[in-house]
Amino acid sequence: MRKRDVLTPLGITIGFIMIMLAILSSGGREGIDNFIDIASIFIVIGGLIGSLLINFKYEQIKLFNSVMIEAFQKNDYNLNEMIHLFVRLSDYARKEGLLALEIKLDDEDVQDPFIKKGILLAVDGIEPEMIHEIMDAEITAMQNRHEKGRAIIEKAGEYAPAWGMIGTLIGLVLMLSSLDDPASLGPNMAVALLTTLYGTILANLVFLPMASKLEIKTEEDIFMKQIIIEGIIGVQSGQSPHILEEKLSAFLLDEENHHSKEFVAGDKLHET
Amino acid sequence: MRKRDVLTPLGITIGFIMIMLAILSSGGREGIDNFIDIASIFIVIGGLIGSLLINFKYEQIKLFNSVMIEAFQKNDYNLNEMIHLFVRLSDYARKEGLLALEIKLDDEDVQDPFIKKGILLAVDGIEPEMIHEIMDAEITAMQNRHEKGRAIIEKAGEYAPAWGMIGTLIGLVLMLSSLDDPASLGPNMAVALLTTLYGTILANLVFLPMASKLEIKTEEDIFMKQIIIEGIIGVQSGQSPHILEEKLSAFLLDEENHHSKEFVAGDKLHET
Amino acid sequence: MRKRDVLTPLGITIGFIMIMLAILSSGGREGIDNFIDIASIFIVIGGLIGSLLINFKYEQIKLFNSVMIEAFQKNDYNLNEMIHLFVRLSDYARKEGLLALEIKLDDEDVQDPFIKKGILLAVDGIEPEMIHEIMDAEITAMQNRHEKGRAIIEKAGEYAPAWGMIGTLIGLVLMLSSLDDPASLGPNMAVALLTTLYGTILANLVFLPMASKLEIKTEEDIFMKQIIIEGIIGVQSGQSPHILEEKLSAFLLDEENHHSKEFVAGDKLHET
Amino acid sequence: MRKRDVLTPLGITIGFIMIMLAILSSGGREGIDNFIDIASIFIVIGGLIGSLLINFKYEQIKLFNSVMIEAFQKNDYNLNEMIHLFVRLSDYARKEGLLALEIKLDDEDVQDPFIKKGILLAVDGIEPEMIHEIMDAEITAMQNRHEKGRAIIEKAGEYAPAWGMIGTLIGLVLMLSSLDDPASLGPNMAVALLTTLYGTILANLVFLPMASKLEIKTEEDIFMKQIIIEGIIGVQSGQSPHILEEKLSAFLLDEENHHSKEFVAGDKLHET
Amino acid sequence: MRKRDVLTPLGITIGFIMIMLAILSSGGREGIDNFIDIASIFIVIGGLIGSLLINFKYEQIKLFNSVMIEAFQKNDYNLNEMIHLFVRLSDYARKEGLLALEIKLDDEDVQDPFIKKGILLAVDGIEPEMIHEIMDAEITAMQNRHEKGRAIIEKAGEYAPAWGMIGTLIGLVLMLSSLDDPASLGPNMAVALLTTLYGTILANLVFLPMASKLEIKTEEDIFMKQIIIEGIIGVQSGQSPHILEEKLSAFLLDEENHHSKEFVAGDKLHET
Repeated sequence: MRKRDVLTPLGITIGFIMIMLAILSSGGREGIDNFIDIASIFIVIGGLIGSLLINFKYEQIKLFNSVMIEAFQKNDYNLNEMIHLFVRLSDYARKEGLLALEIKLDDEDVQDPFIKKGILLAVDGIEPEMIHEIMDAEITAMQNRHEKGRAIIEKAGEYAPAWGMIGTLIGLVLMLSSLDDPASLGPNMAVALLTTLYGTILANLVFLPMASKLEIKTEEDIFMKQIIIEGIIGVQSGQSPHILEEKLSAFLLDEENHHSKEFVAGDKLHET
Repeated sequence: MRKRDVLTPLGITIGFIMIMLAILSSGGREGIDNFIDIASIFIVIGGLIGSLLINFKYEQIKLFNSVMIEAFQKNDYNLNEMIHLFVRLSDYARKEGLLALEIKLDDEDVQDPFIKKGILLAVDGIEPEMIHEIMDAEITAMQNRHEKGRAIIEKAGEYAPAWGMIGTLIGLVLMLSSLDDPASLGPNMAVALLTTLYGTILANLVFLPMASKLEIKTEEDIFMKQIIIEGIIGVQSGQSPHILEEKLSAFLLDEENHHSKEFVAGDKLHET
Repeated sequence: MRKRDVLTPLGITIGFIMIMLAILSSGGREGIDNFIDIASIFIVIGGLIGSLLINFKYEQIKLFNSVMIEAFQKNDYNLNEMIHLFVRLSDYARKEGLLALEIKLDDEDVQDPFIKKGILLAVDGIEPEMIHEIMDAEITAMQNRHEKGRAIIEKAGEYAPAWGMIGTLIGLVLMLSSLDDPASLGPNMAVALLTTLYGTILANLVFLPMASKLEIKTEEDIFMKQIIIEGIIGVQSGQSPHILEEKLSAFLLDEENHHSKEFVAGDKLHET
Repeated sequence: MRKRDVLTPLGITIGFIMIMLAILSSGGREGIDNFIDIASIFIVIGGLIGSLLINFKYEQIKLFNSVMIEAFQKNDYNLNEMIHLFVRLSDYARKEGLLALEIKLDDEDVQDPFIKKGILLAVDGIEPEMIHEIMDAEITAMQNRHEKGRAIIEKAGEYAPAWGMIGTLIGLVLMLSSLDDPASLGPNMAVALLTTLYGTILANLVFLPMASKLEIKTEEDIFMKQIIIEGIIGVQSGQSPHILEEKLSAFLLDEENHHSKEFVAGDKLHET
Repeated sequence: MRKRDVLTPLGITIGFIMIMLAILSSGGREGIDNFIDIASIFIVIGGLIGSLLINFKYEQIKLFNSVMIEAFQKNDYNLNEMIHLFVRLSDYARKEGLLALEIKLDDEDVQDPFIKKGILLAVDGIEPEMIHEIMDAEITAMQNRHEKGRAIIEKAGEYAPAWGMIGTLIGLVLMLSSLDDPASLGPNMAVALLTTLYGTILANLVFLPMASKLEIKTEEDIFMKQIIIEGIIGVQSGQSPHILEEKLSAFLLDEENHHSKEFVAGDKLHET
């Protein structure tokens, strides 16, 4: 199951707490009121929606919510668990034959459709190169799909500051057009600046970091799916469970052990 | 038929309503007047036209209108319909021979020139690799043509804010040159800012989102044409209608089913 | 002959008329005077020249004028004319032999050195692949040469706003250093802003659109030269004039007919 | 051992001394106080942390500290030393056989895991192409790992100025909302500008140069590891120690001798 | 010998003269004083040095001076001279044998190490493909070396305006913190703007154009070295001096004759 990613709400919360603290520290309790202006919220959010509607197709816009939610979830891959699954599958296939894997899949209660599809292809006797090709095509398709979804968030991060600027320009024009009351000059200008503030916060605290996280998650998905392909090819070609475990664990090492290793690299070489 | 795309006019309408609301909410009824200035409209639109005339050839500039209209239309591909057409064509070709397809094309009343061209090439007995090559060349040509048209909108999105800034600079210079009447300072500066506002709105509510939508539509066109090529090659090589349907439906799945599937991926794996 | 391109001077004229109108409409007749300042012109143009001298070699700087003039000319390719030339050459070659083409070239009064070179290579009995390679190398060399020339205009479009900003900063420093006379504050600031205005106009009405047009022209040149190569290979390989005409006309179609065709594409498919 | 890189702390120190001098020279002793504002530090650093938490996964964020420390260390590769090691290994392998290298590795007290892994692969009798492939894969993995770590610093360099701007906007809104006391106008605006100052300094004196140095170090690591691969392949293929030394020294020359050589290049050619 | 490049100092001189004229024309003699502020120079130059120290390795920073000097020198390639050298070498090799070239090299007093290395490789009987490979590797190494040196100038062009902005922010904060004396407001702000002016001038008149010129020179070096490789392969393969001269002159033509030719291209074609 995809687990909730605490970092995204945490980051947004921290960002808003900092903004609150900054306001409270110099503006006090009533300072907060100066930062909420319905018309300003309307122009930035509404304008942003307008630009996105023009920019995208209906099918993509429908994805907006699910993509946003996606940024609050994290991949919960358990590489160790998965390696052991492939070891068991490999063991079973060597004992009972490839065809028996179909039952084993149910026994193991494997629900990942990517693993299932791969195993079924292997059971069907499709050649390894072909399996590789079919499953790589799935990875590419997933990548395209994710990019399409991410594109909306990225564009939102571009249009938000632009609409912030549009709002500020409107405010400035209104303010400058009627300078009769010099006392209202400051507050009016303050309101004008609010849209720029909203746009900048939306872009730098919400859309841009989210789009970036979604990109990192996609890379992770690709990495995992490539390991699964290795595992399935290994099971199909009848590799010994032990060798398969070693081979797949190499990916594990790569992710977890390498960094520490590297820092001692070369330590003693030069004293030789 | 290309259908009207409601999203583009909807987005533009929402954008302008938001701008109106923002003006009305703080400036009232008469506030609107401050935002219409003929000279400012002239400098931004006229300057933009000037830059575009220098930037492009006559042949490309003629495309401006049709490309703009294009952004208000959406591709109305019916993938299901098209798959069934290929199934019928495949069935017919297996029964009556490839040569009979020419008549079938008329019976089916197929008007898509890309499908027609492909079928006629198949009827002429051109080899599959050659058909692929010829039709890929058509796709590339279409892509280049669309890019040429889109380039004008993209450049308009670059020059519009620049001319907005030029207009504002002219306004500021005029205002600062004659500071005799301090009362006119504000209104003059308001007028000066109008061109920047116009340029920013034109870029972020019109040109940039439209160019982006045109790019998405081109990608969709390419995707559809690649399915058509698969269909034609399938018909020519005498694939059974059933297999052809499955093969082409894979594209359908990819577009519509995958997303939902993916979110349950891995759900149970780790409880194994 | 390269014909004069009316669009470039037209665009520049429109741009300047718009600027004039904007000034006259709010500043009146005497407003124009506020926009001409010799020192400001000097700093922008002179500084720009300084940066370009450092940026480029003498050989490239010498090209500046001819490249600028180039942006006022348009390619006057007559594809139909050229196709007919190749049809006549092909016909002649089939009747009189390849060697006779050298005389035919003079009869036809062909002056395009690229066509001449290709025909002479064919007459010399060089193999088609070799001709392709030699002439592709010429295209690449032309592309590099054009890029070198265009680079100066592009860099001018980058340095012009930068020098505009330098001029404005100098003006602001001078103005702020001596605030004795508050009456001179406005006019002095107006003068300071002039350089930014000059730099922005130079970049967005002159250099950037010109560089962009030169790039489009280079692409056109490459397209034409690739058709010429097809024609020459066709003539050499003894293709029938009729087939050669059809083949070369495909390029013509691609440029002129496709667009209209495409918009009806798919019209009737979905009613089937 | 990785040595401390004095340049990074030196650069940061110089940067801050310059800032101090600039403040002291015009603001005097008490001027410094104007530049320290706890709320401003909070909003920039806190907001930056918020954006980074959303942007990255927990595993990457954990790397932040070690990557920052990494920028204060320099690679202490001794190419000469390493070449001599390979010469000794080559000599030993030719005398005692490849298998004996395992003991020699301990005698030489080689601690670099990359060299060790390569030699052990050679001892195991893996073919040279395979060794090349395995070790190239390690280099690519290292490169990806470094890029992941560097990405945090690069993003920090993007978000820092954005949060500086957010802080300034908040300050301006607060200031403009309550213009009752004109005397506080200046100091309040000064405080508002502080966050922009903090953000700009963080980006241009800390994050961006550090990310750039980390990139240079990664390139250096890749270069070293490629030499090591050459050395190991040389040892395995039984190249004479003398030839191996020459071959590896070519890399040394490339780094150290070439530059001086080049400047005399062509000196006398044209007097011939 | 590399000759002094007069364009670089000329460009810098013109740039500074323009700045001087702009100051003198509106500020008069004493205006100059307003533009020199030691603290401002310190913060921009010092901060720039700080950022560069963090950004680069010691080995690269050492190159700063030589790279800057490099931008004041121009390649003094004499293509004609070089072609004649290869013609003489080719002639000599055909008469006396390849081995005799070693003596000829001394007679001709060839000092270019790249030519010397190539000829010696040919004398050693290395195969042409191998010579090509070895010498291409040298070109790539040179390119990398030049890029490393150029990177410092490019980064200086990025950090200079950033430090200009930091200096201005510091000045503004100081000025706004103590508004007691309204008379000092203007001059203080003038001083604050000086760092931005310095940073912009450094970037656009010094670092960015220099980095660009260095890139152009590197391309020229690559072009020359590729001709030299052609020459050496020609000499080795025993091509007739006459053919070699024609072949190498093709490069010459490409550089010098083509441009004029091209403009008449197609002149008469369409009147046929």
